[in-house]
Amino acid sequence: MLAQPTDFHLDPRLSADCEFVVDLPISRLLLVNNASVPWFILVPRVDEATEMTHLAMPIQHQLLAEVNQISQLLEQLYQPQKLNIGALGNVVSQLHIHVIGRFHSDPAWPSPVWGNLPNNPYIASELPKMLDKIRQCLG
Amino acid sequence: MLAQPTDFHLDPRLSADCEFVVDLPISRLLLVNNASVPWFILVPRVDEATEMTHLAMPIQHQLLAEVNQISQLLEQLYQPQKLNIGALGNVVSQLHIHVIGRFHSDPAWPSPVWGNLPNNPYIASELPKMLDKIRQCLG
Repeated sequence: MLAQPTDFHLDPRLSADCEFVVDLPISRLLLVNNASVPWFILVPRVDEATEMTHLAMPIQHQLLAEVNQISQLLEQLYQPQKLNIGALGNVVSQLHIHVIGRFHSDPAWPSPVWGNLPNNPYIASELPKMLDKIRQCLG
Repeated sequence: MLAQPTDFHLDPRLSADCEFVVDLPISRLLLVNNASVPWFILVPRVDEATEMTHLAMPIQHQLLAEVNQISQLLEQLYQPQKLNIGALGNVVSQLHIHVIGRFHSDPAWPSPVWGNLPNNPYIASELPKMLDKIRQCLG
């Protein structure tokens, strides 16, 4: 059922915008490097995948379990007022699922974050500690 | 497992912007009345639900099955170049899942549709035939 990591190539635009967190059973978990909102991306390690609904159902169920896991982590760590969950892929076609915590006070609210957030990277020296905290919460 | 329709109240903003298509086992299926893109919305008939990941897993699995069904219907009827699937709810908090067909030539491409499409209702006299065709495809 699980894809082989050796087959997996992450789109360079995702690599450029995100920090690697961890490999879950089906997805690579990334944190978008924008401190304005807590924003995770799950990239299923399935070559050539572009649409979630084209995956076999057991893979979709595992992906949904990982979306649930990351939603719970996000709620535990950041207490957002709303979750935004979506698979768009209009710019980067490699299948990836956004799991974003939204706040009434965030710079894009109530619009979607895509295209509506200024560049706002995390302080580089604080990233390792933050990523460690996220990994600890994942167990 | 299934919610009781008698408990179900559709947010009036969804009623105002959409046409009723059919009740699936867990969701009410709506068509957004904007002819610029084929745009469906699934509203699980679960009172007070705002986050997909707060639903019990069997309900989420049924919802995922319905997202798959509507994605396939959309691909069959409209042959889009990309699907956009998302649960946002920043404006209307009642849980609803967007399933949207996107084209490189649509007025919002490659941006998300939300907030980026002009008002473009279907011709009223053509709507009943279109809705019938969609219902027929659903079997």
